[in-house]
Amino acid sequence: MKTKHVVDLTDLTHEELLSVIRLANRIRENPEAYAQACRGKILATLFYEPSTRTQMSFQTAMLRLGGRIIGFDNPQNSSVAKGESLKDTVTVVGGYADIIAIRHPSEGTAAAASMYSAAPIINAGDGGHLHPTQTLTDVVTLYNEMGTLENLTIGLCGDLKNGRTVHSLIKTMSTFKGNRFVLISTPELTIPQYIKDIIIASECSFTQVRSLAQAIPELDVLYMTRIQRERFGSEEEYQKQNGVFVLDKAKLKNAKKTMRILHPLPRVDEIDVEVDYDERAKYFEQTVYGMYGRMALIMTMLEKSDRTPAPRLRSTHPFSCSNPRCITQSEKYLPALFREAGGDMLLCRYCDSRTLI
Amino acid sequence: MKTKHVVDLTDLTHEELLSVIRLANRIRENPEAYAQACRGKILATLFYEPSTRTQMSFQTAMLRLGGRIIGFDNPQNSSVAKGESLKDTVTVVGGYADIIAIRHPSEGTAAAASMYSAAPIINAGDGGHLHPTQTLTDVVTLYNEMGTLENLTIGLCGDLKNGRTVHSLIKTMSTFKGNRFVLISTPELTIPQYIKDIIIASECSFTQVRSLAQAIPELDVLYMTRIQRERFGSEEEYQKQNGVFVLDKAKLKNAKKTMRILHPLPRVDEIDVEVDYDERAKYFEQTVYGMYGRMALIMTMLEKSDRTPAPRLRSTHPFSCSNPRCITQSEKYLPALFREAGGDMLLCRYCDSRTLI
Amino acid sequence: MKTKHVVDLTDLTHEELLSVIRLANRIRENPEAYAQACRGKILATLFYEPSTRTQMSFQTAMLRLGGRIIGFDNPQNSSVAKGESLKDTVTVVGGYADIIAIRHPSEGTAAAASMYSAAPIINAGDGGHLHPTQTLTDVVTLYNEMGTLENLTIGLCGDLKNGRTVHSLIKTMSTFKGNRFVLISTPELTIPQYIKDIIIASECSFTQVRSLAQAIPELDVLYMTRIQRERFGSEEEYQKQNGVFVLDKAKLKNAKKTMRILHPLPRVDEIDVEVDYDERAKYFEQTVYGMYGRMALIMTMLEKSDRTPAPRLRSTHPFSCSNPRCITQSEKYLPALFREAGGDMLLCRYCDSRTLI
Repeated sequence: MKTKHVVDLTDLTHEELLSVIRLANRIRENPEAYAQACRGKILATLFYEPSTRTQMSFQTAMLRLGGRIIGFDNPQNSSVAKGESLKDTVTVVGGYADIIAIRHPSEGTAAAASMYSAAPIINAGDGGHLHPTQTLTDVVTLYNEMGTLENLTIGLCGDLKNGRTVHSLIKTMSTFKGNRFVLISTPELTIPQYIKDIIIASECSFTQVRSLAQAIPELDVLYMTRIQRERFGSEEEYQKQNGVFVLDKAKLKNAKKTMRILHPLPRVDEIDVEVDYDERAKYFEQTVYGMYGRMALIMTMLEKSDRTPAPRLRSTHPFSCSNPRCITQSEKYLPALFREAGGDMLLCRYCDSRTLI
Repeated sequence: MKTKHVVDLTDLTHEELLSVIRLANRIRENPEAYAQACRGKILATLFYEPSTRTQMSFQTAMLRLGGRIIGFDNPQNSSVAKGESLKDTVTVVGGYADIIAIRHPSEGTAAAASMYSAAPIINAGDGGHLHPTQTLTDVVTLYNEMGTLENLTIGLCGDLKNGRTVHSLIKTMSTFKGNRFVLISTPELTIPQYIKDIIIASECSFTQVRSLAQAIPELDVLYMTRIQRERFGSEEEYQKQNGVFVLDKAKLKNAKKTMRILHPLPRVDEIDVEVDYDERAKYFEQTVYGMYGRMALIMTMLEKSDRTPAPRLRSTHPFSCSNPRCITQSEKYLPALFREAGGDMLLCRYCDSRTLI
Repeated sequence: MKTKHVVDLTDLTHEELLSVIRLANRIRENPEAYAQACRGKILATLFYEPSTRTQMSFQTAMLRLGGRIIGFDNPQNSSVAKGESLKDTVTVVGGYADIIAIRHPSEGTAAAASMYSAAPIINAGDGGHLHPTQTLTDVVTLYNEMGTLENLTIGLCGDLKNGRTVHSLIKTMSTFKGNRFVLISTPELTIPQYIKDIIIASECSFTQVRSLAQAIPELDVLYMTRIQRERFGSEEEYQKQNGVFVLDKAKLKNAKKTMRILHPLPRVDEIDVEVDYDERAKYFEQTVYGMYGRMALIMTMLEKSDRTPAPRLRSTHPFSCSNPRCITQSEKYLPALFREAGGDMLLCRYCDSRTLI
């Protein structure tokens, strides 16, 4: 693997991603053979916001490879409470641990951390921005459940506007040919234009629909997502959208027998509990595929880890990122790093958002 | 062992319980021989309410068997905060871990969890209901300190009305013959009738007294318990009861030289610190016996673990449990499961409380 | 090592300390050779106040020796919330674990814990009193970076009045000959008289100055410390002192090329981020040296651990310690233990503070 850190799943080439998926499958078929693969290695989970689900998946992955774990899941209990910078925490923990999984509410945090850590960094979620191991989970599941990653009709249902797992899955599945995305949402929660642009530029296609019931018969895969309460301005707005796209046994009647239902979990009520007993429901198996995916990723990243921190970067432009959720807003020592996006537009290299100059 | 899950200690047959106790002793005598007994296995401790004491005991037990640990001890840090159901959490963690110890403030939680988990469940305390590994701890201690589990005169002192460890210990010790229970409490805190019924139906007997000082000379064992402040309506009521049944050196003067003092810990002030230095005090050794008891239980449960979740259960009656502390009150998808208890009475299979229909 | 517990670094003889430092270096040079040195052993980290930095360092040290870890970092999640005494917690955990690292906001806590624990106790910080493994970290760093622990000119800058790491470092470095301490602080934050007395009684010397810029050219070592906000009466007072002694590139221009900069971390803004890129900055390497120091200490302490709790101590005087931050203020069962300090003065054996009788 060429990349040392995995901030986005697109840091891996198409071939590297397939190689990780294949390794995940070899581990799944013969876990005993890998039970000491990371013996003597330490994973640090730095969770600046709680996510038991994700943290346990990483911890289990490392332990099942024979490695050990340290970390925190509560910023109040950390040195952060004494005003320590992300840079200092990551520098120190990068000296203790062999690999770091970091989760943080600010967008671009993993990219920032990767600039200072001697140990490889895995992005375990940076705000609403990226969550590459969830996408790896989804792709390992599809590869195993569908037998292919090509020519699939994939329905994505729920909050397509804010759902980072949806964006990331589309980006990755667009690199495989012949996939068709059926985007199921209310008009208020449709997919952003830049994701559509990615599909258009690929060998895939998409349609946008408003009705889950209407879309379901043609789907090979139905990817359900939660409508996150915290994304809405008011409780009233939330209640209006929530419940519109609930998957239940009635809707499922018209689906293919071979369709697979995925969900990044946790779910609230967008999938009725009755559906859990349907053979097409694969969202719990999905979490186990995710564990094997993370095992494969950790193994691959540790194989070529060099323990050399990256060289210092200098600001590329005399501007700061205008995204209020960008990590550069709170960690002031970070250099301003942008890519030119044409015209007066700059793309922040931490959070990928646009700044007009 | 026939049972996959241990919700109550009575899930084990008399012979199975003795077999676990004997294994605990073999481990205690030769810990090195068992230092890799659970190598490659993972214990998840899901503690929805904090109990460092119990959690550390489970963790130490698993680590001393060569296993690994994951888990949480703070529901605020868990996916629960995102509204995830117990069912979903247990299903997912049951896919990561090989065995789960669960603690929860609602009665019947462990029974509910055992319906969905592929991994065996140990009840580490469900509200005021059951706490089987504490009772296992007590029994391993008695077996070693007294040399027998029969024909003992066992004093139980403190809050006998609400103390689940007392109820559970009596239930288990009633299955051994010739034991006599001396129940020492104020009239307000006497043992519930159903526990008396259990003793009456067994080959054991009981007496009820009001004075610790008067009862102490005849005891082989004195089991002290804390009067839990949170069980009382008012601070005034608590202060009135608390302190009445304090064990101190003066009271201990009239006890047998061979008497043993047990306590589930933590204690507050119901045993004077001076008593710690008396050779009869065994409550600290008790915690170490408990560690060996948990090691034996984990080993035994993992030996025959089949990783198959239980078949789906359907509601047995069109009623819901009337116990406000029952897990079915908050987890609405749970089927209503009752045993008929004669007349218009139903017994909830989760929390064991009675509902009148 | 003669001492079972390490409450203060002066519990080790000069020769024992050197022996630990040399072991730390052997581990650093060949970590593989020690990867199973503590196999089967358990470290408990009892952190009654959060310190992710210190806790992770201990955990990493134990894991890299092949040992296992249990513990807590949040008193709200512990049995302490049920009113358990320090004595009971330590007695129980001392039965579970092979070695304990304890951190607590009250002064003298580690000394108190060492009276009840079957397992050896390491003081991981007791309020503003002692923090011996930080000093061990500092000394291992100096030994490696300077090649000697003698005849060094050591600048100490910042809050010299309240900084326990500074006091402890001076006490330890005073036992090596020919060191000269340059004490750099405002008049309000100068070193206490008793530390000066220790230097005067040793084969070392000191000078007191007010200007970092002026002192810097002659230094072999510059030990920077944080001015802790919580030590000040008002925010205004804090702002006045803070920033006066900031190390930046300008001040560094006049320093020796071979000078080494240390800092116990976390830093806030007393060292400018630009200094991180100077080759003389060693505060991040320092944390790695600290990990090896803790590994050596744990190994050495476990080698001769006897698992016998100390005999009971009785009060030496009919007085109680007058230090409001002493552990004896809250844990009332602790015997009053004093050393006579001449005249009407008693020295508390827990917190080392003076009480006038």
